[in-house]
Amino acid sequence: MPQDLLILDVRPAGGQSADVLIRDGQIAAVGTIGAADGAAVLDGGGALLLPGLVEAHTHLDKTLWGMGWHKHSAGPRLIDKIENERRIRRETGIDPDRQSARQVAQSLRMGTTHIRSHVDVDTEVGLAGIEGVMAMRERLKAVIDVQIVAFPQSGLLIRPGTLELLDRAMALGAEVVGGLDPCAIDRDPKGHLDAIFGLAEKHGRPLDIHLHEPGEMGAFSLELIIERTRAHGMQGKVTVSHGFCLGMPDVDQARRLIADLARERIAVMTTGPASRPAPPVKQCVEAGIVVCGGSDGIRDSWNPYGNGDMLERAMLIGLRNNFRLDEEIELALDVCSHGGATVMGLDSYGLAVGCAADLLLVPGDTPAEAVVARPADRTVIKRGKVVVRNGELTEPVA
Amino acid sequence: MPQDLLILDVRPAGGQSADVLIRDGQIAAVGTIGAADGAAVLDGGGALLLPGLVEAHTHLDKTLWGMGWHKHSAGPRLIDKIENERRIRRETGIDPDRQSARQVAQSLRMGTTHIRSHVDVDTEVGLAGIEGVMAMRERLKAVIDVQIVAFPQSGLLIRPGTLELLDRAMALGAEVVGGLDPCAIDRDPKGHLDAIFGLAEKHGRPLDIHLHEPGEMGAFSLELIIERTRAHGMQGKVTVSHGFCLGMPDVDQARRLIADLARERIAVMTTGPASRPAPPVKQCVEAGIVVCGGSDGIRDSWNPYGNGDMLERAMLIGLRNNFRLDEEIELALDVCSHGGATVMGLDSYGLAVGCAADLLLVPGDTPAEAVVARPADRTVIKRGKVVVRNGELTEPVA
Repeated sequence: MPQDLLILDVRPAGGQSADVLIRDGQIAAVGTIGAADGAAVLDGGGALLLPGLVEAHTHLDKTLWGMGWHKHSAGPRLIDKIENERRIRRETGIDPDRQSARQVAQSLRMGTTHIRSHVDVDTEVGLAGIEGVMAMRERLKAVIDVQIVAFPQSGLLIRPGTLELLDRAMALGAEVVGGLDPCAIDRDPKGHLDAIFGLAEKHGRPLDIHLHEPGEMGAFSLELIIERTRAHGMQGKVTVSHGFCLGMPDVDQARRLIADLARERIAVMTTGPASRPAPPVKQCVEAGIVVCGGSDGIRDSWNPYGNGDMLERAMLIGLRNNFRLDEEIELALDVCSHGGATVMGLDSYGLAVGCAADLLLVPGDTPAEAVVARPADRTVIKRGKVVVRNGELTEPVA
Repeated sequence: MPQDLLILDVRPAGGQSADVLIRDGQIAAVGTIGAADGAAVLDGGGALLLPGLVEAHTHLDKTLWGMGWHKHSAGPRLIDKIENERRIRRETGIDPDRQSARQVAQSLRMGTTHIRSHVDVDTEVGLAGIEGVMAMRERLKAVIDVQIVAFPQSGLLIRPGTLELLDRAMALGAEVVGGLDPCAIDRDPKGHLDAIFGLAEKHGRPLDIHLHEPGEMGAFSLELIIERTRAHGMQGKVTVSHGFCLGMPDVDQARRLIADLARERIAVMTTGPASRPAPPVKQCVEAGIVVCGGSDGIRDSWNPYGNGDMLERAMLIGLRNNFRLDEEIELALDVCSHGGATVMGLDSYGLAVGCAADLLLVPGDTPAEAVVARPADRTVIKRGKVVVRNGELTEPVA
């Protein structure tokens, strides 16, 4: 039985100061408690108390974190980056187990307690990425929850054998079926989407589809996804990642797509991309869509940027959406916490009594200030155990 | 005579390790030096050596830094924010001297050694902002160089008396004449631009014009600015800040404007705004335009965001412009250093022998990595004196 933990003087979601008692990894009481027999005590010093942040879209298997600075040279097209990545993977030997653990360590330091990671499956790497991330997940299960999406990064139908590998990845323990640009990459939207919806149905698992396709092409693919979500009865089990087309110039068409997504309870993941059209977060949420946030790849062969900080991600989503009011900034934070928790299907997430004690203590007056200031001085609790204290891991992770 | 400073083992711009000898506030030698009689010694530990960063556009006089979290409530329009700001200034008593010093302290910690600040001049505040920032500048002149733009934030012609105040601000010691949205705010583009170009000519000073106006309206104002720059022979002495219209959908028109700006040597300032059209930085630089970077307002009544970190600003400019290659990221850093130095007219800026010893030491393998990682552990040298060591001011500033 783990030791109880009493956190003194924290302000849940920026409200009045309270103490929080944690028992068996759950929030057992919130209020004026003062002391509890046999409990370890953590003085919160008036910090904000937030639920652990949720990284709802990253690529743990291929970060170059800790491997020295990688000089970026890939061409501008999506396919350039896909091919460049396979080459780098061959040449540098990116170990998915080691590398995913390094990113988890960094994410934990930043206050992330749950991660949904896409993991490449293709005819070259096979299931090595899935196996590596699964090994890391087993080893680090006390400090992080990781959900794995079996992801056909190099295409599905254009690389025969990939669908069978995805099937095996799902049997092995991946929780979510992935998809990718059914027009732009796979060149056969009907074939691609029928295949992944079929696979999701076979395994009784959700779907998370990368949709970078812009404008009218992306809108077309989105219509096909909406039709299949309805036909397969998969409402509440499909996520569209990126969905750049929702930021298309034709705002009437975008509004219709958003209404259709809401009706089929299809979630949307955004990184808050500054250089692309992007889903209008407030409009999506007001329409009833669950919106979650992600870092996407961190310091990998695609993307030189990123630090796994979901407070910074909330800031970037806020900047992208011109969020300036406090309630808007807090909406961006909600996307990076509760939104991701809903998408990941977490059933005991939050600050209420009975919730899992996955918590972040961070200095600041309000949640909006935490997003803006992104203090390094964070304390992170996973299932009632202090795993990060003042920005440093209490035990080595990676 | 200040003591010499010998910096051991730094990598200028990410190159080979070298020592740097500083004498009389200037770089006296770079190479293998090892020891120098009577010099203080700073071990660089292999850090990157960069020239001090340049904040080329901010509003020192009205930051709320250090005044507790300000809950944002202003309406969405520009004019809402202008009116809201004057109200907050009346209600909260923002002291321009104290507040500008607080922002300078933060900027220094982040490695900024030069700041161009717009300072509000209007019929309500009069010259109090100018006087406050000038007092701060005099007090802190050993640690920061500040250039002041007399800025008609509340409009020029629509608030009679403002032009006379701008004239007095220039006589008092402001170095640059400011302007603001001649169509959208002042409702009289010819009148506004004739007035500020006339004032700049009278004082023999440069111009820096806020141009938020989007699309065709902004393009029209920009044409008027280009015409007057040519007519007044002010090539190399005009900066357009924001210039959102350069990101207009009509890329042919934008290309023509960029060529015209380059011909008249009009500089462009960008913050890398994620939620707006923005000047395409690479295209501007390739056309020959000097591009500089700025934070704009930091934690003020307009903008809840900001921390004065010009490495982070380079990252945001990189994200906005989809800069992924190392040379692109280094271009964003150049905007936030050399570009700003050129706009501010600094004549001894850089890492060469003879340059002013305004320097930043930061961990990292390459300048691109410094932009991406933004380490907190920075050491800053101003005119040969260590003013920030490992992220902390060596002496109190604010």
